[in-house]
Amino acid sequence: MNYSSKRIEQAVHEISKLPGIGQKTALRLALHLLKRPEDEALALADAVVKLRTETGFCQKCHNISDTEICGICSSPKRTEGLLCVVEDIRDVMAIENTGNYSGLYHVLGGLISPMDGIGPSDLTIGSLVKRVSEGSVDEVVLALNTTMEGDTTNFYLYRKLKDLPVKITTIARGIAVGNELEYTDEVTLGRSIAQRIPYLQSLPNQS
Amino acid sequence: MNYSSKRIEQAVHEISKLPGIGQKTALRLALHLLKRPEDEALALADAVVKLRTETGFCQKCHNISDTEICGICSSPKRTEGLLCVVEDIRDVMAIENTGNYSGLYHVLGGLISPMDGIGPSDLTIGSLVKRVSEGSVDEVVLALNTTMEGDTTNFYLYRKLKDLPVKITTIARGIAVGNELEYTDEVTLGRSIAQRIPYLQSLPNQS
Repeated sequence: MNYSSKRIEQAVHEISKLPGIGQKTALRLALHLLKRPEDEALALADAVVKLRTETGFCQKCHNISDTEICGICSSPKRTEGLLCVVEDIRDVMAIENTGNYSGLYHVLGGLISPMDGIGPSDLTIGSLVKRVSEGSVDEVVLALNTTMEGDTTNFYLYRKLKDLPVKITTIARGIAVGNELEYTDEVTLGRSIAQRIPYLQSLPNQS
Repeated sequence: MNYSSKRIEQAVHEISKLPGIGQKTALRLALHLLKRPEDEALALADAVVKLRTETGFCQKCHNISDTEICGICSSPKRTEGLLCVVEDIRDVMAIENTGNYSGLYHVLGGLISPMDGIGPSDLTIGSLVKRVSEGSVDEVVLALNTTMEGDTTNFYLYRKLKDLPVKITTIARGIAVGNELEYTDEVTLGRSIAQRIPYLQSLPNQS
């Protein structure tokens, strides 16, 4: 395409590197930035620079954090013996939003995925094993996505942790609340039958 | 939402100001930038800053340009007497891609839209009238979108230009090449019947 301006071309080139944004959307975004007040574009650029250069990670749970130890890890209200292993900050946010979890987290920073060139050493697995072997953890809850990569990582973590004195659990998989049996896939339905629980346990106030 | 980091929160806030990007997508983009090499994020920020602070407009046609007079306006190969009025750079690019137009352009920078607070004085209409009244233009081709705003702007431009010694035309509206009559809306079909042209003129090589 002929953009008539190197600046536009450069901006479109950089914006279209973002996931899910193609050349046309990138051009639309670039033109939007050109139309808006200058300080709005500068604020965006500044936020991106600060995000990339100043954001750090919690030394304990590896979640994104502005401080050395994040707010969750340093909170006295959390149950220290309970550790939930998640992929990234989005999962932390999702679980925090439920209001049903009061333990700590361990953020892996990804899932084992040979196809994408991500091996165990790219994740914070070593740090997780160290945390658990120090002995203050009673239970590790594996809360990874129910994908091939999630299952692989779950199994890898299980093998790494199984000889340590810790209970290893995983979040329940089954039919989502509000879903109909008829439209649930066989694998999910099959698992939810095999892993059935006593009725009284399933009531919300028994959690 | 609780982002656990002010940097993330700020980046999500700024990114989600872009059109069509909500909080969830903004968070996904921010996390993507965090995962990629630092220079990629810095290049994006730099491109945005340069785009907003260094991009200029052609003094003649008001298209986005790095030079005072853009490449199209300064080209000796273009027909000087033919002037195509478009909304923005995307339309210039679309028309250039057809390879069917050899005249010059005039970029309005928007369409008259009282709902969005855009009046004639926000566009480059004064400059267009000045260009035409200087006498070197033989024909003005109105090539605006076939929307309410486009039609309003077309009519406004017609009234401004009609007393000047210039031919005013508009791009043909009708059934798109490859479309079926059966699925064409009535307005388009009705217009294309009312504005029928001699068969021989419709052949591609007669353009």
